Amino acid sequence: MRRACTVAVDAMGGDRAPGEIVAGALKAADELGVGVLLVGRPDAIRPFLPTGGPPQGVEVVAADEVISMHDDPAASVRTKKDSSLARAAEAVSDGRAQAMVGAGNTGATMASALLRWGRIKGVARPGIAVPIPVPGSHPQILIDGGATVDCDPEWLCQFARMGSEYARARFGISAPTIGLLSNGEEAGKGDDLRKRAHQLISALPGFVGNVEGSDLMAARPDVVVTDGFTGNVALKTLEGALRQVAGLVFGVLESNPAAKEAGTVVAPLLLDAAAQLDPEATGGAVLLGVRGVCVISHGSSSARAIVNAIKVAADCVHADIVGRIANAASGAVSGVGTDAG
Amino acid sequence: MRRACTVAVDAMGGDRAPGEIVAGALKAADELGVGVLLVGRPDAIRPFLPTGGPPQGVEVVAADEVISMHDDPAASVRTKKDSSLARAAEAVSDGRAQAMVGAGNTGATMASALLRWGRIKGVARPGIAVPIPVPGSHPQILIDGGATVDCDPEWLCQFARMGSEYARARFGISAPTIGLLSNGEEAGKGDDLRKRAHQLISALPGFVGNVEGSDLMAARPDVVVTDGFTGNVALKTLEGALRQVAGLVFGVLESNPAAKEAGTVVAPLLLDAAAQLDPEATGGAVLLGVRGVCVISHGSSSARAIVNAIKVAADCVHADIVGRIANAASGAVSGVGTDAG
Repeated sequence: MRRACTVAVDAMGGDRAPGEIVAGALKAADELGVGVLLVGRPDAIRPFLPTGGPPQGVEVVAADEVISMHDDPAASVRTKKDSSLARAAEAVSDGRAQAMVGAGNTGATMASALLRWGRIKGVARPGIAVPIPVPGSHPQILIDGGATVDCDPEWLCQFARMGSEYARARFGISAPTIGLLSNGEEAGKGDDLRKRAHQLISALPGFVGNVEGSDLMAARPDVVVTDGFTGNVALKTLEGALRQVAGLVFGVLESNPAAKEAGTVVAPLLLDAAAQLDPEATGGAVLLGVRGVCVISHGSSSARAIVNAIKVAADCVHADIVGRIANAASGAVSGVGTDAG
Repeated sequence: MRRACTVAVDAMGGDRAPGEIVAGALKAADELGVGVLLVGRPDAIRPFLPTGGPPQGVEVVAADEVISMHDDPAASVRTKKDSSLARAAEAVSDGRAQAMVGAGNTGATMASALLRWGRIKGVARPGIAVPIPVPGSHPQILIDGGATVDCDPEWLCQFARMGSEYARARFGISAPTIGLLSNGEEAGKGDDLRKRAHQLISALPGFVGNVEGSDLMAARPDVVVTDGFTGNVALKTLEGALRQVAGLVFGVLESNPAAKEAGTVVAPLLLDAAAQLDPEATGGAVLLGVRGVCVISHGSSSARAIVNAIKVAADCVHADIVGRIANAASGAVSGVGTDAG
């Protein structure tokens, strides 16, 4: 079978690596018809492969070093030339793969892609487009989820363009709505960065104005623009709140015999509802603005999350997200303005 | 009955003013034994008073102008000299009341207190201490919830001191733990502001390092320090997430006949659990750093929320929170350092 594209997967990254990563990669190769390069220490990967060796479409690419969650991102990528992340990024720049997926050290995953591939011409800083699950709708895109913590107003405007293009390419939204995350809806609200960014972003089609934290996980706007610091805080706040409430709700269902009885009916329905909010199902965040497709999956990724991350990677390749961002950055596409180059 | 203290309440501020505000004020005067000044338009307040006029301990203070939610905070406070907010702040500076409570335009409430009372000596900028409900524990204090959106590192350090003193005074926590809200726990994480603030705050007793969005609504740390922009985004994100999940859960309990049946058992228990997360029960945020007690209640405040806000105001008066913050700011108290004056 001819593989539509090949995805290099960091087999060593993530809390459950390499077992769950390898399992997910094998499943993706089988179910999605994509090629997979499993990058990492062969002796660590091998136990999780079928006894006959890697199945069709799967190849092990040796990399003897590992970047841990606690390594300094930029330094480790520079010094550990034979790390699984460096080799995965290299596989893409060599043309052996068209995308990479990592569930390990987020900073190092970004740094390896950025260092090896460079930025798209006209893009000042990369941004992570994070899908936020929305019950009954396509995900909302938050950009930046943590790539660039200190931002200039112009960069936020570029995140808006990239996020909008991404929403268009991945979810087929013809005219994505864009909101600037702020501390109030009125145009005058915000810190200095927001006030200056507001003026720039308000020239973009689809801009609906400032939005607030309570507009996250909602069907509108399609794209929420913020700096990487605030984006990370907001995403983790959301994640923590959902976890806390889930604990409270399932605690209630264990609190007495009558509740337990009722729980046999209600718990499966609640789990179904909760599945709509499961980040594992949305498939990982994408680093936009670099010259390649880099998908960042959650550190706790299971095999299922890896399958979905590989699917996102393949979708981005098919949608030519890099080419589209390049066009958007140079102002050539979709009427998203002309002042970004 | 001698009233322990008197609280000036902006009767015109809030989505449900004046009805719920007046109802809450009457209830507080009755139940808490505090005096209440109901500040606002007498003809708007009167319909909600008993037919015989205000009961003992309650007095109407006439103010003919109203600052709406959409008025510019600073400008409206300066121009509307006869607004209920300006008159409430004035009642405190005149000594007719010892604290004020407002549920209307947050910016204008702060501005009226700041303008009329001024800052505590040694305090560079005020910060809003917002109680975040924590199931099974005292609230966590987030400071700043939105008073000062563009911050210097020194101001964050001062928020840490003030928040710590507040946690000590209000909740009797002898050695409050302090966390700096950042995009990762490691000391090197954060934007430029956080990195510089980290160095200053790390000298304070109780500092536990950086914390993340997922540490909100948790029993540790007692005090979460951030700028007013990020604080507002995080609080609204939390609020929005809780509302969304509540919608999902109660939707499930309506989704089919068996679930409805189970819901008769489970729903009351869930409502009890949810009550632990109800911001109305925690009683409002306090503006710290100004020379008076100013409690800011949620715009959607019900009578019950107003009772709790008045209780917070009275507690702050009794705890001499202003005096304690003044001491902490001058470095004279509780071993919180000496470099803040």
